[in-house]
Amino acid sequence: MAIVLYDLMGADDRYFSPFCWRARWALAHKGQNIDRHPVRFTEIKDIHDGVYETVPVIDDGEITVGGSFDIALYLEDAYPDAPTLFAGGPGLARFAEHWVQTAVHPRLVRLIVSDIHDHLTPEDQPYFASSREKRFGVPVDQVQASRDDELPDFRKALTPLRKTVEEFPFLGGDAPAFADYLIAGAFQWARVISPYQLFEADDPVAAWFGRVLDLYDGMGRQAKGYELAA
Amino acid sequence: MAIVLYDLMGADDRYFSPFCWRARWALAHKGQNIDRHPVRFTEIKDIHDGVYETVPVIDDGEITVGGSFDIALYLEDAYPDAPTLFAGGPGLARFAEHWVQTAVHPRLVRLIVSDIHDHLTPEDQPYFASSREKRFGVPVDQVQASRDDELPDFRKALTPLRKTVEEFPFLGGDAPAFADYLIAGAFQWARVISPYQLFEADDPVAAWFGRVLDLYDGMGRQAKGYELAA
Repeated sequence: MAIVLYDLMGADDRYFSPFCWRARWALAHKGQNIDRHPVRFTEIKDIHDGVYETVPVIDDGEITVGGSFDIALYLEDAYPDAPTLFAGGPGLARFAEHWVQTAVHPRLVRLIVSDIHDHLTPEDQPYFASSREKRFGVPVDQVQASRDDELPDFRKALTPLRKTVEEFPFLGGDAPAFADYLIAGAFQWARVISPYQLFEADDPVAAWFGRVLDLYDGMGRQAKGYELAA
Repeated sequence: MAIVLYDLMGADDRYFSPFCWRARWALAHKGQNIDRHPVRFTEIKDIHDGVYETVPVIDDGEITVGGSFDIALYLEDAYPDAPTLFAGGPGLARFAEHWVQTAVHPRLVRLIVSDIHDHLTPEDQPYFASSREKRFGVPVDQVQASRDDELPDFRKALTPLRKTVEEFPFLGGDAPAFADYLIAGAFQWARVISPYQLFEADDPVAAWFGRVLDLYDGMGRQAKGYELAA
């Protein structure tokens, strides 16, 4: 029996919802045929007597699931013999790496670059000061001077991580994976070398980072560094 | 025999390199002890006669590997009986979802929101126009009017995806995973409803999106929509 997909309908036979497309590809991935039930925005409230405010929604026999991610989780569970939707491998870890390099490191270095300088051995300080002044266009202490103003943007940039570790102990799920280490490395960089407090006390990112620091008999936490207030 | 880790050293016994921390946690994850060789920035050029410009570098017996990601790949291959560094599961897929919701959707909707309106059935247009005007503060055609100016920022926001799909066919690796569908849904949303060309012709993101469109007998490509120039 085909799975019913309530799919958002535009004019002229156009099915455009990005969330319904996620579900359609997931259903195809699991080898499932669909019985499409087109709905307009203004008709979503009529699906199953108004339980759902958004599509996609699927009916698999008696079971109804709404939301593309929950649909994927359901399909993974209900159809374990079809290829997994949650393959790992280096691809997704690489994506996490490119995210941290793009979204986190460039913002974070500006908050701690003068502290880094001050914690280098005298042999390294001239190299570091001149190479970073070249990169930033101003001396490292000037870069760092505006960090209180830049902190909110840094914290906001962590949103994808924050929302994920609110739900899962680690990016790897119940256990850490290289993607966790890729990102935690950035915060450990700061913790070892700077007393500056990156996180608000109740930030789920701080809690997750604490979990990474505790791994392997507290290897990360035992390294010489500054205390986290969070 | 312990694996040698060339680890960046600060003053006062501080080991702060984010990239070396990635490698340290990865080595611990694989149950490997390390023999730490501290190096200063200005000493990196002396490792193995100057082959490396950055650390971490490891020596595992006769084998030398540089770069935290390549080290992780090496460890995964060399120590397959230890827990995988590249676990998948829903955690990383959720991270990809939060990234697309945070970095992509808010930018993309501004480029196509009036086109969406114009491709809705007449029954839906008043609801859409008023709810989106409330969200954006101006009518949808005004939101979209500045799209040529906003396009470069949209394209730049795709950097983590772009760099990943330059290297791997899919985020899932050789085969697609739900993370691919999560992100491709955004671009399919645009393709179905808007003639606006999001990608430069040689953008690796466009090539990856084309691969997703080809999946399952071209399911995505066959959906009524606009042609991609890229």
